[in-house]
Amino acid sequence: MALIRSQYQDELDGVSQSLVDLTNMVTTSVVKASKAVQSADLALAEEVIAADVKIDDFQHELDARIIDIIARQQPVASDLRALVTAMRMSADLERMGDLAHHIAKVARLRHPDCAIPEVLLLPFTEMGHVAEKLSIMVGNVITTRDTDMALQVEKDDDEMDDLHRKVISTIINDSSGLSLETAIDLTLLGRYYERYADHAVSVARRVYFLVTGTFA
Amino acid sequence: MALIRSQYQDELDGVSQSLVDLTNMVTTSVVKASKAVQSADLALAEEVIAADVKIDDFQHELDARIIDIIARQQPVASDLRALVTAMRMSADLERMGDLAHHIAKVARLRHPDCAIPEVLLLPFTEMGHVAEKLSIMVGNVITTRDTDMALQVEKDDDEMDDLHRKVISTIINDSSGLSLETAIDLTLLGRYYERYADHAVSVARRVYFLVTGTFA
Repeated sequence: MALIRSQYQDELDGVSQSLVDLTNMVTTSVVKASKAVQSADLALAEEVIAADVKIDDFQHELDARIIDIIARQQPVASDLRALVTAMRMSADLERMGDLAHHIAKVARLRHPDCAIPEVLLLPFTEMGHVAEKLSIMVGNVITTRDTDMALQVEKDDDEMDDLHRKVISTIINDSSGLSLETAIDLTLLGRYYERYADHAVSVARRVYFLVTGTFA
Repeated sequence: MALIRSQYQDELDGVSQSLVDLTNMVTTSVVKASKAVQSADLALAEEVIAADVKIDDFQHELDARIIDIIARQQPVASDLRALVTAMRMSADLERMGDLAHHIAKVARLRHPDCAIPEVLLLPFTEMGHVAEKLSIMVGNVITTRDTDMALQVEKDDDEMDDLHRKVISTIINDSSGLSLETAIDLTLLGRYYERYADHAVSVARRVYFLVTGTFA
């Protein structure tokens, strides 16, 4: 019995580890996509686009494994909640991978031009840094279940929202002659980063809720 | 025992019915949001914004009920898959409600002006109609588990993608002097409708997979 219980515990730990692995894959993608779109790096954009299939496959395998654990182990209520939450987190992380993929596709679409004009390079570089920071924090939150850090993810998302507002107001007030096409690209890119951060917050909030039973 | 089994069946049927109810709430929101943004109708926009909280609460209650059913009934593998799928569908539907809410917020932000200029009123009116049609089909797919109609949702999503491309190319080629601010609004509105349709397709695909065990 002790052996069976231990195998079950290994399975639960394996789910957590897979969520961390998925977070690392997504972090790599958003860092590469950010560099690709800032510097019109086609090879890097292609790497992100190719990696998206692997991220999707990894998530599907993880979700199938979670459902299998629920079916076989008939977990108690608290474990069941944790497993259902893990599926929701994997969906958030997969979506973060999609958004990195979208960013890379804008880089590819405009290559050999750079999708981001000089006047907006700084806020987009900062958005890339905030996305990277939030992803790393989310990986730590999943590993440590540190509720203070989970709250910090939510606070740091405000930086992304500020940068997003800055991008929009820079586009609107631009006097350098941005084209409507460029405005569309920048609007979508801004939206992708904002949604990326929202999903990072969602993962952190799910961990917070699992640990405390309440929303912050 | 027959009585207990029947109560369980009632619970499963109740989950399906709640998904249909949620679909109906979301359909109402996207129809109202579309009218609000096309005609700068502030009262209608406020109705959609207020309804979003109810949609979120309804989804949370439904998900809690599903987890409770899994914990109490320890369902066989096929029922477990159906219940997990129901949670994923409720997440898609809740997100469709969010997107209708976003559309309504653009209407409110630009009121008393209309967010959509004359030159783009037709494609956005059509996008609203396609969103409504897809939502109604999704409700039918959930009720009837009709796999042909599930495939049709995916085909009809192509209409939304075509309309979205038309909107983007109209903005880029515009000679009527669209401002960058209007271009940003229209880009985001187009994106919201496109994502709304994507989630409708996702719900239809989940039903298709539940019934057939394969993806189309």
